[in-house]
Amino acid sequence: MSKNPFFKNKGPFKLSSLINTLSDDTLIFDIKSLNDANDKDITFFHSIKYKEFAQSTKALACITKESLIQYLPSKCIKIPIDNVLLFTAKVTEQFYPDSITDNNNFDLKPIHENFKNIIAGKNTLVGSNVKIGTNTKIGHNTIIEQNVIIGNNCFIGSNVILRNALLEDNVHVLDGAIIGKKGFGFIPNKEKNYRYPHIGYVLVKKNSEIGSCSTIDRGSLSITVIGENTYLDNQVHIAHNVKIGNNCIIAGQVGIAGSATLGNNVMIGGQAGISGHLKIGNNVQIGGGSGVIKNIPDNTKVMGYPAIEIRNFLKKNKWLTQLINKK
Amino acid sequence: MSKNPFFKNKGPFKLSSLINTLSDDTLIFDIKSLNDANDKDITFFHSIKYKEFAQSTKALACITKESLIQYLPSKCIKIPIDNVLLFTAKVTEQFYPDSITDNNNFDLKPIHENFKNIIAGKNTLVGSNVKIGTNTKIGHNTIIEQNVIIGNNCFIGSNVILRNALLEDNVHVLDGAIIGKKGFGFIPNKEKNYRYPHIGYVLVKKNSEIGSCSTIDRGSLSITVIGENTYLDNQVHIAHNVKIGNNCIIAGQVGIAGSATLGNNVMIGGQAGISGHLKIGNNVQIGGGSGVIKNIPDNTKVMGYPAIEIRNFLKKNKWLTQLINKK
Amino acid sequence: MSKNPFFKNKGPFKLSSLINTLSDDTLIFDIKSLNDANDKDITFFHSIKYKEFAQSTKALACITKESLIQYLPSKCIKIPIDNVLLFTAKVTEQFYPDSITDNNNFDLKPIHENFKNIIAGKNTLVGSNVKIGTNTKIGHNTIIEQNVIIGNNCFIGSNVILRNALLEDNVHVLDGAIIGKKGFGFIPNKEKNYRYPHIGYVLVKKNSEIGSCSTIDRGSLSITVIGENTYLDNQVHIAHNVKIGNNCIIAGQVGIAGSATLGNNVMIGGQAGISGHLKIGNNVQIGGGSGVIKNIPDNTKVMGYPAIEIRNFLKKNKWLTQLINKK
Repeated sequence: MSKNPFFKNKGPFKLSSLINTLSDDTLIFDIKSLNDANDKDITFFHSIKYKEFAQSTKALACITKESLIQYLPSKCIKIPIDNVLLFTAKVTEQFYPDSITDNNNFDLKPIHENFKNIIAGKNTLVGSNVKIGTNTKIGHNTIIEQNVIIGNNCFIGSNVILRNALLEDNVHVLDGAIIGKKGFGFIPNKEKNYRYPHIGYVLVKKNSEIGSCSTIDRGSLSITVIGENTYLDNQVHIAHNVKIGNNCIIAGQVGIAGSATLGNNVMIGGQAGISGHLKIGNNVQIGGGSGVIKNIPDNTKVMGYPAIEIRNFLKKNKWLTQLINKK
Repeated sequence: MSKNPFFKNKGPFKLSSLINTLSDDTLIFDIKSLNDANDKDITFFHSIKYKEFAQSTKALACITKESLIQYLPSKCIKIPIDNVLLFTAKVTEQFYPDSITDNNNFDLKPIHENFKNIIAGKNTLVGSNVKIGTNTKIGHNTIIEQNVIIGNNCFIGSNVILRNALLEDNVHVLDGAIIGKKGFGFIPNKEKNYRYPHIGYVLVKKNSEIGSCSTIDRGSLSITVIGENTYLDNQVHIAHNVKIGNNCIIAGQVGIAGSATLGNNVMIGGQAGISGHLKIGNNVQIGGGSGVIKNIPDNTKVMGYPAIEIRNFLKKNKWLTQLINKK
Repeated sequence: MSKNPFFKNKGPFKLSSLINTLSDDTLIFDIKSLNDANDKDITFFHSIKYKEFAQSTKALACITKESLIQYLPSKCIKIPIDNVLLFTAKVTEQFYPDSITDNNNFDLKPIHENFKNIIAGKNTLVGSNVKIGTNTKIGHNTIIEQNVIIGNNCFIGSNVILRNALLEDNVHVLDGAIIGKKGFGFIPNKEKNYRYPHIGYVLVKKNSEIGSCSTIDRGSLSITVIGENTYLDNQVHIAHNVKIGNNCIIAGQVGIAGSATLGNNVMIGGQAGISGHLKIGNNVQIGGGSGVIKNIPDNTKVMGYPAIEIRNFLKKNKWLTQLINKK
């Protein structure tokens, strides 16, 4: 995420003003993920799972646990802390104070006030600084909040909500889809959870289609991506930070949990679920109703819960059937 | 449910006018569940599953089967009948004739006609007698029907529908959520099912969050409750009469069937389902994609379909994998 | 589908103008499924699964594979082609050029301009040629596109979208349901999928109920049917061409994939899924959370994933439990 079109960065801040206990006056310009951070940014590293990203991060400083310091590059300023996520949330809030709430944009206007020649339905509202390409059509009762960008030849249905989203050319978003709300990420806390800021956005690449009543949440510190020519059916849920490749086909009621990544040409049957932070390879096929709880290498077909290779799934079921018949 | 803010009670009725075959003129003031009924109310008891509630009910009268009469307290007036649910539905209709249809409220007004100083979006409508606390914000195209109460510091998104609902302070309801419609309860009947009246409501306790496109149905004779500081992700479905405790975390696309109860600190992974009338204890963790079909005691982690203790789930899968590899 | 009330047929066409390589000037009046086609229509036959329909088709001409020609009646004109579905899509487009996009209807009007005496909410819009029966009520922000027909005594909630749909008498459609959008059918193609035309519609028969946030897609070349007195709970997804019988009860979050057919008196528990093109018999019961991947005969109870007869499901689980306890 090179620049953030949706949330205003209040930085730079001195390290000493971000973290009271430090007297270091180094200027920090932004907060980003281990992967995306460059040599002016702060990042965070809270789980051994991200060891490889940590080893190669370019971040100037990193919030982390005492036990994980060893994996960070020597030139990175280490900031050891007990509750990494809570502290990261608080630093993010300093940079992006508007990002915590998921408040709607209240100064919307009827679309034809700003876009005289566009084909659009009744009661459709747009925020300031929205861009809409040529030959794009938009239905009724649709809400497009500030800074959203929609490409050429797109079709946006009725009752759609678009926030913190960039849509490339020839994208179709069907009736009732909701794109760009904050993700289900927060720091659990008795009596009152701590809402984690979500400063990312959703990028829907060209030629893709998002089905009715599907929800795509924006990323926390990174982007949620729907690849080119990727089709989502109705009632699909894509959580924050998920990255889906090109030419994927995702059937109805599929759910993909936070930060999972999918390669190209992935096909997923209806109602399948993918756990968070998993890596699904290219050309993978996942049977309908499957529950995927492990990474899946390229060119693999899986099925079942937990999902296993389809030939093993069939073997297992055949065997269990024989057993039942014997009893 | 001590008093009903949403449906008008036409009672009291004489027992003889509720039930034609009786000549008893005792006055009955309301109809409630076995649990909630007091000594002026009528209740119903249709399944041995509720034996314990029946034994301790304070109800003045009870509609039940011949075979279940033995479990009711001696002072309770027993009304044996073949089809308990159908008859209960008809008695409920007498008390609450407006409750059968789920008709929308047709006399809504633009929110700023009644609430001049509130921050709210365009096309948002409110019914009569709605109360909204201070510092609460409401998005666009949202519908808030009569008698709904919303606390202080709440955030209600766009395209939300609120009916028969009470929201305490600091509750967030995200875009497209639908709270308070009637439950999926009816008496199956060839050619034309008999719609069961739903006179309950939905109570969302303080500091909670309801995700986008989630649906929470109101109770039939009792309340549907979302506990304090409980977070629901997108596309979650909570059926009528469900009661969820405090500090629960419920991920995307989870479904909880009618009359299930959950304790405090319950965590449920994405796409898991819980059958109706089950009791889930405190501090329970349910893996994503699980299908829970039995009660779960406190402090238990379960997974699978049917959901079993996680260590058994892992054991079973390990064993099946070994078996597949051998063949 | 005897006549199509929603899409205008530009035919008849000479066979030679539909298919460049032919010099046959026979007039073709419409394109229909193997089942529905009569002796003036063209049809298509792309999979051995439909052998029986092919053998008895009355179609005048049929687009098919070289290897499937043998199953067609002798008098049917055979048109062998490599990519049957792509070619069928192109022929469908010639007959129905407006059917490819799922564009919304842009010339809607406030409902009270056309229907002075109807009870309807605010911001509700209707298209041209819509018919609404007596004593039907409609909520707020609802969109009813051109040619939709709604029977008597219906109740349509708020935020509902109805397109390409016929609703018989006494049908209830609850808040947020979306009925009649195009199905998730397209011909996968690298860089840019080919959108398959959907010229069918949705028929909801009398006394039925469709739950909140449920989606029912219209058929491609045939109709999607919800039978009489059939109730769907919230967040149910019914794909294109599905045909559901009478007196069915379908609980929350169920998904039924394209072209599946269900008999009468079918009961489906929450979150169950049914694969495409399956045939589910009469009086079938499917347990919540099940994944059905085979046809199910009449009077059968199934459960599990893959769904098997319930007594076998219980046997299997009992046996696996014993095994776990032994280890």
